[in-house]
Amino acid sequence: MRPPTPSLRYDTGRNVTEVQMDVSVLGLGAMGSALAGALLRAGHSTTVWNRSPGKTGTLAGDGARGAETARQAVAASDLVVVCVTDYAAANDVLDAAGDTLRGRTVVNLTTGTPDEAHDVATMLRTRGAGYLDGVAHAQPEQVGTASATLLYGGDPELFQAHAATLRALGDAVHVGADPRQAGLYDLALMGLWYEAELAFLNALALVGSSGVDAETFVPFGRTQLGYVVDALPDVAAQVRDRSYPRGPATLEEHARVLAQLGELRASRGMNSDHLAHVDRVVRRLIGAGHGGEGFTRVVEELALPLTD
Amino acid sequence: MRPPTPSLRYDTGRNVTEVQMDVSVLGLGAMGSALAGALLRAGHSTTVWNRSPGKTGTLAGDGARGAETARQAVAASDLVVVCVTDYAAANDVLDAAGDTLRGRTVVNLTTGTPDEAHDVATMLRTRGAGYLDGVAHAQPEQVGTASATLLYGGDPELFQAHAATLRALGDAVHVGADPRQAGLYDLALMGLWYEAELAFLNALALVGSSGVDAETFVPFGRTQLGYVVDALPDVAAQVRDRSYPRGPATLEEHARVLAQLGELRASRGMNSDHLAHVDRVVRRLIGAGHGGEGFTRVVEELALPLTD
Repeated sequence: MRPPTPSLRYDTGRNVTEVQMDVSVLGLGAMGSALAGALLRAGHSTTVWNRSPGKTGTLAGDGARGAETARQAVAASDLVVVCVTDYAAANDVLDAAGDTLRGRTVVNLTTGTPDEAHDVATMLRTRGAGYLDGVAHAQPEQVGTASATLLYGGDPELFQAHAATLRALGDAVHVGADPRQAGLYDLALMGLWYEAELAFLNALALVGSSGVDAETFVPFGRTQLGYVVDALPDVAAQVRDRSYPRGPATLEEHARVLAQLGELRASRGMNSDHLAHVDRVVRRLIGAGHGGEGFTRVVEELALPLTD
Repeated sequence: MRPPTPSLRYDTGRNVTEVQMDVSVLGLGAMGSALAGALLRAGHSTTVWNRSPGKTGTLAGDGARGAETARQAVAASDLVVVCVTDYAAANDVLDAAGDTLRGRTVVNLTTGTPDEAHDVATMLRTRGAGYLDGVAHAQPEQVGTASATLLYGGDPELFQAHAATLRALGDAVHVGADPRQAGLYDLALMGLWYEAELAFLNALALVGSSGVDAETFVPFGRTQLGYVVDALPDVAAQVRDRSYPRGPATLEEHARVLAQLGELRASRGMNSDHLAHVDRVVRRLIGAGHGGEGFTRVVEELALPLTD
């Protein structure tokens, strides 16, 4: 892999030595444009390209160079950031770059699955390019600020070589040597978001059935989610140790509360399909003699293909 | 209803006028004992009773008077706090008190359903007693501290008359004139806790399938749940207005991520039963032409008895 060829820039204002890199950004949707903008603001020499033209206007005003083709854009920089619609589009773009990929590092921030990341990494290895698979935990408007976190999977040395540049986009966290890890974290965190969001919406729907308005319930929901957040380290330690002290209530007690919740929802004409899985897990654990343990015990069943 | 008959006590140390009340606590499990302890610390004259004897020791040392029977305990105070195993036990205790209930206020902190609270309220009304149904959002060791919140449903004037005393137990919040409301909030908040806890455990199980240890994942989970908490007011406003702007992604985009998540879980031999319900809801909404709206739109389907 070609090593990065930085030009040093001394920033008297911030009294730090910054490294100005050549970076290309392929894909100028909302996120790609935000990435290019953050790189420009950090002083990097930035080349941009988009499949359909007419997206470079504002960025050109900020100093970006426009490339005519994906191949030209890849040829312009050692570090190539790709952020397009999906991995099929990413593969098309990288195919078009052909042998210009050799020796460069591709950072792919396209949304996809761990297996898709693995396939791109394999393809780029045969072409002599380095690969980091990234996911942005940020809205486009947060990119380049402290509220953005970007996760990267791939060769740790490659990550270290580019970490200073990548930090222009937001906090840069390396989550593993396998390029699949960033997408794994991303989908796990998306699942966490869906389920936590649904937890609140299900509670809103239930109290709403008695005329409680949504905004009245917000402080209660915030406090309750706060308890969950505060307990995360304890819960993680229980999972690590595979030891599940009863804590505030045993699985037998939880089973009763889950049954009461189901009855209440039924009395309001609401189904409890979303709780059926945990209900089965809790009953199965009680049947297997774990009824005196704490709720975290369910984690050992969540990884299983439990179907009845 | 007999009005409370306070004796005034001037606390020079805190430079406030406090009201010392006679309060009885029936049921001395972990929570009942904590309630009695907090009342004693706040300077209230406290009578205690438990079905099985031998639970009053420590409390007697702190100044509690022990009653021989539930009836004696009820007769000793205008304000009667009940905290027993379940509503069947609460009904037994109150039955035993017979006509001594007339004119008193019963605050029932026993765990149960909204309908059970309604039944006790009806029974006590026929006996001339006032009723507040309460739930403690606190562990026993938090009772009497700022980290405890207790929710009360029932006659607002009755709540106001006793609020100063009840605040000895923790923050006292009146959630509605219907005694069913406290139990409704309680079960809705328990559901929120179960689902949010499962959200984290499901994410842990998924990243754990690639060898990520639980504690490594904690900061990511904390940040992600923080996004959910920060957005609660916006989500509640969307629900209030029945207006669901797309926000970071449309339902069509969410459907793709949910499908990717399901595929990833399947590739690790994990089922996605817990996501089946939201998956159906999202697909149904897209089919009905709502695919361009935001995720909060699902709330309108969560209150429905959706079964296919």
